[in-house]
Amino acid sequence: MTLITFDLDNTLWDVDPVIVRANHAMEAWFDERFPGFQETFDASAYEKIKSEVIASSPNIAHDVSEIRKRIYVKAFREYGLPSEEARHISQSAFEYFYAWRQKVDLYPEAKSTIAVLAEHYRMGVITNGNADVYHPSVGLSEYFEFALRADEVGRAKPNREIFEAAAVQANVDPKDIIHIGDHPIDDIQGAAQAGCRTIWFNRHGARNWKSEWEIKPDSEVYSLRELPTAIAELGAS
Amino acid sequence: MTLITFDLDNTLWDVDPVIVRANHAMEAWFDERFPGFQETFDASAYEKIKSEVIASSPNIAHDVSEIRKRIYVKAFREYGLPSEEARHISQSAFEYFYAWRQKVDLYPEAKSTIAVLAEHYRMGVITNGNADVYHPSVGLSEYFEFALRADEVGRAKPNREIFEAAAVQANVDPKDIIHIGDHPIDDIQGAAQAGCRTIWFNRHGARNWKSEWEIKPDSEVYSLRELPTAIAELGAS
Repeated sequence: MTLITFDLDNTLWDVDPVIVRANHAMEAWFDERFPGFQETFDASAYEKIKSEVIASSPNIAHDVSEIRKRIYVKAFREYGLPSEEARHISQSAFEYFYAWRQKVDLYPEAKSTIAVLAEHYRMGVITNGNADVYHPSVGLSEYFEFALRADEVGRAKPNREIFEAAAVQANVDPKDIIHIGDHPIDDIQGAAQAGCRTIWFNRHGARNWKSEWEIKPDSEVYSLRELPTAIAELGAS
Repeated sequence: MTLITFDLDNTLWDVDPVIVRANHAMEAWFDERFPGFQETFDASAYEKIKSEVIASSPNIAHDVSEIRKRIYVKAFREYGLPSEEARHISQSAFEYFYAWRQKVDLYPEAKSTIAVLAEHYRMGVITNGNADVYHPSVGLSEYFEFALRADEVGRAKPNREIFEAAAVQANVDPKDIIHIGDHPIDDIQGAAQAGCRTIWFNRHGARNWKSEWEIKPDSEVYSLRELPTAIAELGAS
């Protein structure tokens, strides 16, 4: 039986506005608690600390949650807090960020499409972000039998191991997986190299496939509504 | 009778993903027609030309459509096209951009809220962007009796003249207008200075009001769903 795996960010919702709002919320959170902190910890300071964190700990490059926590710790230490307190407050700050990170707006066609697919197929999630498809703010918890997140698995797409982990998790062969995502490399090249079949979600048909992306998807859709047909055309059962 | 005026971008939908997708679409459009053009006309080239266009024509600073057309003309001239051809192609390119610019995703609660409000109030639109609330892709054409766009009026928010134009258009006094928008300066300060009342749309409550934004809104909502109550509390009839 075919297993359908979904990417989340930019496949079931737009991620940019979620992060913009979450960052606004963090700014307000910091302002209320640490006068002057937010003034020194603006977008460019954030990016600078982020590069330092990733450079000093390449082993967590796949883990966007851990990276964010360490960025907060480093910023609070630079602000003058002792390490223990910086760690403690960063954990609270991250938890606040995390709740905001789940306030996504599904694409209008997402829920009905997923409900239709769930009647016919087993379904899972494979994401590099820290969205939680089981969070009540997302509202899709009943449809997916598992969700693999790069920050939990320890490998990020396009690494084939995260797709192989999905196959193991669901006890299917990779060739029985159809992976759906918007990203030409992470989703399409990654899944294909693991032996899965792929559907490129190119919303509204905004992009042309580029030859440098190498492995072409098995199918391409402009709207999630096309998925039941596109999946059937791939001979899924 | 109270006139309700709405901002569009980031008040009825998130604008960033719309522009991202429209820019992807333009990239594909240019690629198909002008080999090599898109390679020289990337995001940083765009921003550079944009600054030049605005610096040389401050009289069109309010007109995002005209700015974009002139950016395209300048880029095509640098690419080597003669002026007449550059102008012609830029017009076609802009029309393609414009169609993509209307492919917005309403916030899930937007349409039902607007339908409820339209039963009780006269409604209009005041926007600095080039979204067309009457375009079929937006799907709200029956609810608004007029839409004022900065690129058409010749004045952008927060300039009070665009709000005064709305009052003239609807034949009401500015004090009978309640303006709803997300932007602290453009929507709240601008409308208040024109004598309108204001509701700040602070989606999900992500932000705190900052003292440097000066004129506080008469009311604040975290969800569009709160609007019928918030408007009634302002004594609208």
